[in-house]
Formats: sequence, C-alpha cells, structure tokens
Amino acid sequence: MDNQKNHEIRLKSRPHGLPTTDNFEFVETAVPTPGPGQVLVRNSYISVDPYMRGRMVDRASYVPPFQIGEALTGGAIGQVVASNSDAVKVGDYVQSNYGWREWFVANGGEVQKFEPVAGLSAHLGALGMPGLTAYAGLLRVGALKDGERVFVSAAAGAVGQIVCQIAKAKGCYVVGSVGSDEKAAFLKSLGVDQTINYKTAGNLAAALAKAFPQGIDVDFENVGGAHLEAAITNMRPGGRIALCGMIDMYNATELPPGPNNLALCIGLGLTIKGFVVPTYYDMLGDFQRDMAKWVKEGKMKWRETVVDGVDKAPAAFIGLFKGENIGKMVVRVGPDKAV
Amino acid sequence: MDNQKNHEIRLKSRPHGLPTTDNFEFVETAVPTPGPGQVLVRNSYISVDPYMRGRMVDRASYVPPFQIGEALTGGAIGQVVASNSDAVKVGDYVQSNYGWREWFVANGGEVQKFEPVAGLSAHLGALGMPGLTAYAGLLRVGALKDGERVFVSAAAGAVGQIVCQIAKAKGCYVVGSVGSDEKAAFLKSLGVDQTINYKTAGNLAAALAKAFPQGIDVDFENVGGAHLEAAITNMRPGGRIALCGMIDMYNATELPPGPNNLALCIGLGLTIKGFVVPTYYDMLGDFQRDMAKWVKEGKMKWRETVVDGVDKAPAAFIGLFKGENIGKMVVRVGPDKAV
Repeated sequence: MDNQKNHEIRLKSRPHGLPTTDNFEFVETAVPTPGPGQVLVRNSYISVDPYMRGRMVDRASYVPPFQIGEALTGGAIGQVVASNSDAVKVGDYVQSNYGWREWFVANGGEVQKFEPVAGLSAHLGALGMPGLTAYAGLLRVGALKDGERVFVSAAAGAVGQIVCQIAKAKGCYVVGSVGSDEKAAFLKSLGVDQTINYKTAGNLAAALAKAFPQGIDVDFENVGGAHLEAAITNMRPGGRIALCGMIDMYNATELPPGPNNLALCIGLGLTIKGFVVPTYYDMLGDFQRDMAKWVKEGKMKWRETVVDGVDKAPAAFIGLFKGENIGKMVVRVGPDKAV
Repeated sequence: MDNQKNHEIRLKSRPHGLPTTDNFEFVETAVPTPGPGQVLVRNSYISVDPYMRGRMVDRASYVPPFQIGEALTGGAIGQVVASNSDAVKVGDYVQSNYGWREWFVANGGEVQKFEPVAGLSAHLGALGMPGLTAYAGLLRVGALKDGERVFVSAAAGAVGQIVCQIAKAKGCYVVGSVGSDEKAAFLKSLGVDQTINYKTAGNLAAALAKAFPQGIDVDFENVGGAHLEAAITNMRPGGRIALCGMIDMYNATELPPGPNNLALCIGLGLTIKGFVVPTYYDMLGDFQRDMAKWVKEGKMKWRETVVDGVDKAPAAFIGLFKGENIGKMVVRVGPDKAV
C-alpha cells in the first residue's frame, strides 16, 4: 500500500444543465490508513446513477447536496485490504457508499460484507440497488398482478432491463421504450414483447396506443416528460404508475411543465406513486431469493456498460444522460479477483 | 297530474370554455305516464356538480358525453307519485340519476328508496354522494391517520366542507383554501384550524409553507393547477394526495400544463391517487353509520346553496365555477314535504 496512491473524483462546481467534465476534479491522494475500528477497502467497481444529478445542485432537495471540493459518494464494491474491525476481515467483499474513489477508509459498520454470486459488478446492478429498485417498484409500488400489461420507459437501462424480465417472469405483456435499435434488439433478446424507439416513433401517445390497444396496467416510469404524459393517456382504469425516475428533466435549467392530462387520473382511478429504494429494503431477502431462482431458470439476464478508470467516472456519469449505456453503467477502478 | 307540466333542461350546444346559459335549453313537456314496471317521480331537488362539465364536451372521456338535444342527467331527490313497480310505492322518497328535470318516469330499478334523516336536499350533499366522496377520498384514497396534517382545497365546497370535518373528527390539523372571507368564516365555524384565501394569499406555495411548517400528510385536492403544485411542494415524506377534482381546468380551452414538481414525488415517496366515488360504494354503510354518529355529536354540519326553479339550473351550474356556492349547490324543483 505504501507505493499505492488513491485517485478520486471531487465536485469542482455545480453543473448548470447537462454536467460537463469541468464540473469534476480528478485528485490523487495518499492511500489512507485505517484507525481503530476502521477498515481499508480497495474498490473494484463504482456506480454512476442518474439520481446523483439531484445531489449536485444546491437547491431544496430531500437529500443533502454534494459539497464542492469533496469526493462524491455513491455505490461501490470492493475488497477489504486491512481491518481493525470485528465486522469484516481482510479479503472480504464489501459494498459501501464510498464510490467515486479507488481506496477508502471507513468504520467497520459503514461497509456491508457480501458473498459474490456473480461478477462483482453485478452487485452494483442487477443484484444490487438497481435490481431491488426494479423488484420493489414493480411488485409493491406498482402492485403488479400476473398477466398485466406493463410499459417500461428507459427499458434498456440498469433498472429497466430488470423490470422487463420480472414482468415477463410474471406472465405479463411488456413494452419498453428505448433510444436506439441496438437497445431494442437487446430487449427483444430478453423476451420483451414490443419496443418503441422514442427518437423515431413520432407521437409517443399514439405509439403507445398502438402497442397497448387495451391500455396499460402498470407504467414503470424512469423518464418522465413526454413519456409520462403519453403513458397517462393510455392507462387502463385502476392503473398504477411507479414513478422511479424522471431523467428527462434532471438537467433542465428551468423546471419543465408536468403532464397536462393528470385529470385522467380522476376518472380512471389512477395511482402515481413515487419511490426510492431505501423505503423497500425490507424486500431484500425476497428479492435475492427470487432473483436467484430466475437466474437459475434462465429468466434473468443483464448487460453492463463498463468504463475503465476512476478518471473516466465523470464522462460515464454524463453518458447516462446521453443514453450511452446499455444496462448498468459501472466504472472499474480496481482489480476484480472474484471473477 | 293532468294539469301539470314537466320542465327540463337540455344541452343545446357544447360549451367552449366557461359554459353560458345559451348552451342550455329550457323545455316544457307533458308529465309522462308510467308504463308496466315503471314509476312516476316528482323531483324535489336536483344536483349540479363540477364533474358534469366533463360530460358536456365531446372528447375522449371515461364517461359517455351528454347528447345535444337531450335532457341532462345527474343526481336527484324526489317522491314517487305513481308506481307500477313492486320496488317502490306512492309517497316513497327516492334518489335517482334523473336530474335537470321536474318529473320523470323510470323503471322501478332505476330509483333508490331512502328514509330521509335530514332535509331532503342533504341527501344530495352531505349525506349523499359528495359526503361519501369526502369520506372515501379522505379515509381510503388518502389513507388518513388520526392526527395528521391535512390540506383541503375548495374547502368550503360540497365535498370540502365534509372533508374538513371528518379530518377534525379524526384529530387532525386542517387547513382549507377558500375564495372569500365569508367562506373562511364558515370554515372557522366548523373548527378548521386555518384558512387560506387563494385570491389574496399571493404565492400559494409560500402560504402553505407558513400554514404547514411541518408539511402536509394528506392533500384532498379539488382544484388542481396552482393548488396542486403548491401542495406537492409542501408534502411530507410518504404524503398522499387524494385527487378528487381539478375544477381549475374544467373550462380550459387548451389543456394547461401539469405541476412542474412531480419529481418531488420520487424522493418524498408521495402518492397521487385519482378517484371517483362509485369505486367506493362498498363504504356506504360505514359512511352512513359514522355520519349519523358525527351529526349526533355535533361534529358534522353543512351548508347548502339552494337555487329555486329548474330554469335556474344552468346558472347554478355555471356558478359552481365562479365560487358562488357555499357548501352544496342544489336546485329546488318541487315540493319538499319531508321538512
């Protein structure tokens, strides 16, 4: 460790609109030394997620904003290199919120030991928070019933790809929106019934009406904007909208207007329910059990978009808003000995 | 009956924007004669409700539109004058959907007999559908818990006045929005904690922030527009919005944009649930039981705005959108022998 250096990404300035790499700072520091009760972890993969955009601005928010000049945080998977904690030992694989960096020191209680059941990076994606987000959002927030009609926006993303497959495993008719033919082909390979390329589909409400002649029971909403409005127009009576993300407006410099058809919620008895995954951590056990079963049955696959080097994390993050990822976007920042 | 004439209101043309009396036609007809299995009813009161505006336009809707040249329909309370049906007998008080007219003939199964427990008109308001709307919307759609913080828009209206008092009966802190000082005073007399006059309050989100320093648990939304947006801004984590009406846009000639802050639903875990009362008819028994109890305990009062003469029904209906009513707006079209 003496010869090792840590590299991390700090927030340099608050982005206005779509972030640029100038908003981030790549910094070299010494690898820290763990104190009493602490552990030293070398990260293998770190996560970049759309929700992080919300913490980069300093406006009223439900989460504390990232601070200028400090290393960003976020999901990370790594291995314990030194431990002064009874909770974990050297060699343990751990997940933490110490992302955007290669090495870190933390109290033993701040890292969660886990047994890798697939490539390490999957534990930041399909088997991690995005997977649980899909599971909880579809089954509890969306109250999905077997055989229903499901629309998934940003369906080839980290969460969307899992939503699609859970819905298929539940015998549902599933339509996903995507931004490229490659993503459409990927979804088809997962068994998704139809895809809509929102960049070429023209009127999205009309495209959804065609794909859902009988309407939508559950909209798993990752995009917002025109996607959400088009979905509301096509919902069936009693339909549910699980509002997971609104990536369409995360970089807006002025708040764009909301859907103009919310009044349909009244007559149709629609439910729009927003959520974040920590509210549903009680489902973690069920999620892990069901995912293991679906993987074994060949009903659950996933893709990842892996970028190499912590210095590339800002570009990877920005790429999320340009649709550059298929499946989960992760950044490899260290060795992956588990593979 | 031989000397009697019926008078009714027909839809003459579809309104564009706020309806005018020219959109309606006042017509005199013979009192009809009941056939086999039919009953003849003389209405005492008929209901005018904001939701009816949605049936006057001929656009995609979850309810069939009213037809030009036909008598409008809606809630009505009357008394059986002749009966060829085993279901009801002469003198029975009945409610039906044969509003906007003085007399009607219908099959026995189309009228529901009831025992008046207050003035007949109350069965179109506090003790009828508006009351059940308040009850179901607050307790089941809004999932109200005792002691929570409740915002009610259009709080002095037919539904709002009941919502406020149910919430108070449940030990809640209740703030209502109104459009006049007279309505504010009325709500105060019902025990409502604070009122906001939206016409003079300036920034509605700021007014709500002041009235709810700890945020809103349940928003019973009758108005939409700026009211809904301001409520969303001030919701507490896990808050629920029972979307009952959006009167703010019922007369819009172009669909106005929706709230620009729906993304708050994600982080705060908010639920927006639209509803119409027929979905909750299973609660009728509980509603009647609880209302009787609250009335007896002095916890439930109501006001009505009574307009005389079926010819005045169009003006009464239009008045709903100008805030002319306090409590339920009803039109007296016949004798009220029950009082």
